[in-house]
Amino acid sequence: MIIREITADECRAVLERVNFGRLGCARDNQPYVVPIYFSYHAGYLYGFSTPGQKIEWMRSNPLVCLEVDEQTSHDRWVSVVVSGRFQELPDTPEFAAERTQAHAALHKRAAWWEYTSVPGAEWRRKAGPFASVFYRIHIDTVTGHRATPGASS
Amino acid sequence: MIIREITADECRAVLERVNFGRLGCARDNQPYVVPIYFSYHAGYLYGFSTPGQKIEWMRSNPLVCLEVDEQTSHDRWVSVVVSGRFQELPDTPEFAAERTQAHAALHKRAAWWEYTSVPGAEWRRKAGPFASVFYRIHIDTVTGHRATPGASS
Repeated sequence: MIIREITADECRAVLERVNFGRLGCARDNQPYVVPIYFSYHAGYLYGFSTPGQKIEWMRSNPLVCLEVDEQTSHDRWVSVVVSGRFQELPDTPEFAAERTQAHAALHKRAAWWEYTSVPGAEWRRKAGPFASVFYRIHIDTVTGHRATPGASS
Repeated sequence: MIIREITADECRAVLERVNFGRLGCARDNQPYVVPIYFSYHAGYLYGFSTPGQKIEWMRSNPLVCLEVDEQTSHDRWVSVVVSGRFQELPDTPEFAAERTQAHAALHKRAAWWEYTSVPGAEWRRKAGPFASVFYRIHIDTVTGHRATPGASS
């Protein structure tokens, strides 16, 4: 297996193609990782969620990491790691354009809305009535690796 | 789609069955998420790596999170989230039994050794000569959710 670093353009192509990844956030240096659906557009990753632990934690500390991978076999895969910053897109006139963009980007993806109930009933009880949260992640850095079958395996 | 919380026993069954997940660590509240292979045994997750960013970060802050999921379709999946603490298993007599356990646990899994070169050449240059790192993660808490097709989809 040969593992090589891929370029930023190749990383972006993965983010455009794959709309599912694992989002890491942290509070008091305790990381928390959950699967999310997202949509990449012009340097931002757009997401949507009901209130829950990850939203609470990202509100208190906007530093996040998103890992996205595709595996064809044990020796043929690509993995991309984004470091970025969470930004909430509240339902106010100031963020109307960003929310429209978020909705348009996410709506292209099948079943994006299916996952909005994942955080669970307990968090919804704490958060009160159902309230959807739009957010985006500003990409600060992105790195990626690709493995292909080869002599070194 | 109906999403329900699963029991700790059901979570452990997932960890025993699935040997691949996404590990989150954090430094200065910046999370970092990477795919890892692991093996579950008696309350610990065993892993193996070459030196690299995740090892450096876990040495400086042992608080970690591991997310493991299985997806059959968009409305049939299980996801387990572990919060735990990294413990290195150095090559000393004191840790001989734990390293033997780690090696035995990992060796059961096909291709576990294939992924030890993932961290990349840059980190190996910084770390000096090749040195494998055995570690385990003590599970502090584990939670999980299972989705099945249902009326609420």
